Amino acid sequence: MTELPFVADLHDAALAARLQHRIDHLTKPLGALGRIEALALQIGLIQGTTSPALHAPHLLVFAADHGIAAQGVSAYPAAVTPQMVLNMLAGGAAVSVLARQNNLTLKVVDCGVNHDFAAHPDLIVAKANRGSADSSLGPALTRADCDFALAQGQAIVRSLPGNVLLLGEMGIANTSAAALLMTRLTGLQLAECVGRGTGLDDAGLAHKTAVLQRALVRHADVNAPLAMLAAMGGAEIATMCGAVLQAAHERRVIVVDGFITTAAVAVAAALSPFVLQRCVFAHGSAEQGHGRWLEWLGVQPLLDLGLRLGEGSGAALAWPLLPAAVRLLNEMASFESAGVSGRA
Amino acid sequence: MTELPFVADLHDAALAARLQHRIDHLTKPLGALGRIEALALQIGLIQGTTSPALHAPHLLVFAADHGIAAQGVSAYPAAVTPQMVLNMLAGGAAVSVLARQNNLTLKVVDCGVNHDFAAHPDLIVAKANRGSADSSLGPALTRADCDFALAQGQAIVRSLPGNVLLLGEMGIANTSAAALLMTRLTGLQLAECVGRGTGLDDAGLAHKTAVLQRALVRHADVNAPLAMLAAMGGAEIATMCGAVLQAAHERRVIVVDGFITTAAVAVAAALSPFVLQRCVFAHGSAEQGHGRWLEWLGVQPLLDLGLRLGEGSGAALAWPLLPAAVRLLNEMASFESAGVSGRA
Repeated sequence: MTELPFVADLHDAALAARLQHRIDHLTKPLGALGRIEALALQIGLIQGTTSPALHAPHLLVFAADHGIAAQGVSAYPAAVTPQMVLNMLAGGAAVSVLARQNNLTLKVVDCGVNHDFAAHPDLIVAKANRGSADSSLGPALTRADCDFALAQGQAIVRSLPGNVLLLGEMGIANTSAAALLMTRLTGLQLAECVGRGTGLDDAGLAHKTAVLQRALVRHADVNAPLAMLAAMGGAEIATMCGAVLQAAHERRVIVVDGFITTAAVAVAAALSPFVLQRCVFAHGSAEQGHGRWLEWLGVQPLLDLGLRLGEGSGAALAWPLLPAAVRLLNEMASFESAGVSGRA
Repeated sequence: MTELPFVADLHDAALAARLQHRIDHLTKPLGALGRIEALALQIGLIQGTTSPALHAPHLLVFAADHGIAAQGVSAYPAAVTPQMVLNMLAGGAAVSVLARQNNLTLKVVDCGVNHDFAAHPDLIVAKANRGSADSSLGPALTRADCDFALAQGQAIVRSLPGNVLLLGEMGIANTSAAALLMTRLTGLQLAECVGRGTGLDDAGLAHKTAVLQRALVRHADVNAPLAMLAAMGGAEIATMCGAVLQAAHERRVIVVDGFITTAAVAVAAALSPFVLQRCVFAHGSAEQGHGRWLEWLGVQPLLDLGLRLGEGSGAALAWPLLPAAVRLLNEMASFESAGVSGRA
């Protein structure tokens, strides 16, 4: 079994007080920048400094196929996973456009897509397999494949320049894997965790729910987070979980996208709760379950724009708020330096 | 009296259908980009094209002093208005930092600040006066000053390169002017329209409410939008109102910031309702009243981050979502061009 990276508690009351003091003396009314101030404080605490800086942000799209797609749980066929990987590499996917706009380095990680891709400078091959098995019939991943994926995720982040990891994913049927993990990790009812994914109608949603219910029954005796990840997750979620743990260990800023990336973070947080201190939740997805999951985790997303695309598109859309928070902290004048009067 | 620019109805069902068709064939599930899709559609309709483009965005900060500040309605002294103008020009204000980050051209418009500024390349002098009169005692602006301000706003926008106007403002006590306009334009109770501004405590809020109640009584017989603007507004709101009407006439994209900029837009929309078709509401302010006003106008802001700074800071923070929407529309592959399979 993989040895997982240690994730320390970032709690530092003295640093938090110094950051808050700095924020409160910038030329604006107290608290007037709202959640941007909290974001600046969080990034300062992650980096352990009152002068944080964000370097070389990388958006990794973790891609894999899912055996449970054969049960008809998605509105789109499994062939779309490799097709969308190629579209991302060719620059035509939403996340490709948003990465270009925001100067994010985009890499696609083949964690287990059912396709052999030609080499590409933006493709990282880290295949545990060619797709998970059908979790409604048995374990999605063997423990060996799950451990391999976790280790690959760690290794990829270790080799990554910069200090920011933005999470994205692609994998037809991966809202099913995420909904199963949500149900088991939170203890909420399946009906609160399952959603329409890429656009199921009511009958499709009922069918998906029935399939997932069978998977839950089959894996009812699986209780540890990594065992759940193997039994009901998928290779991209497992690789991403390893990447999140490594990034948290290295005190990188982690920008979480939607429902699937939250699954990877939730498994990582079940192993090391301080992971969440490093996570910025980019947006609340329109996928039913996501809002409830964020609430359960005790976190609040930055954006609420009805997105439900995945790929890291929400992480990329929210991204500019992070350099904004850092630059406001570093570059705004103080009342004293600018000669601005305080409260009357 | 000023002749106001004509603002045409942008309704174009054929263009809307072409835009929606294009959006729906991009490589993503239908509607998966949520409100970003609606934003792309809106910008396409404003520009009258399926291939919109945003050029040379300008953020104008309209600044003025307010006679009603003498009644103690703000937590900060009136001296802060010119001090913050200088801070903006020196690059130390929040809006200065955010404009730099986002490559927005920042100009400060002195619409009526109680100070004579030295010439500065980023300062536009368009002074109606050196501050409005106290609207709790009489009209804030003479009709001549109000007309002058409206005309200046139009002239400034006429000379502005590019096709985007982002709105910002600075003026101690201008939440009082905006709350008065909100009360009269919407018919809502004053208590729903007045808020803490830069940070009044409960006693300060009660005092502000009492002062504004006196102003409402004094101007109870004023009923036309421009007459209300003169009686209870201020020079920056009037100049901004002229700028908004001109920008709307020219089919520029208008990015609205918080409570005060909404006041200028609301007056403009009372004169020409199609103004709102050109407006992107950047954020819902924490200033009490703003959310209710946006609801009354039937619009929804992009961000909800608890901001209450003004200056255009929220407009600048939301700005990257606009080029994102445009680039997604223009640069994403279609299912056909990318060879991606459709729904199963």
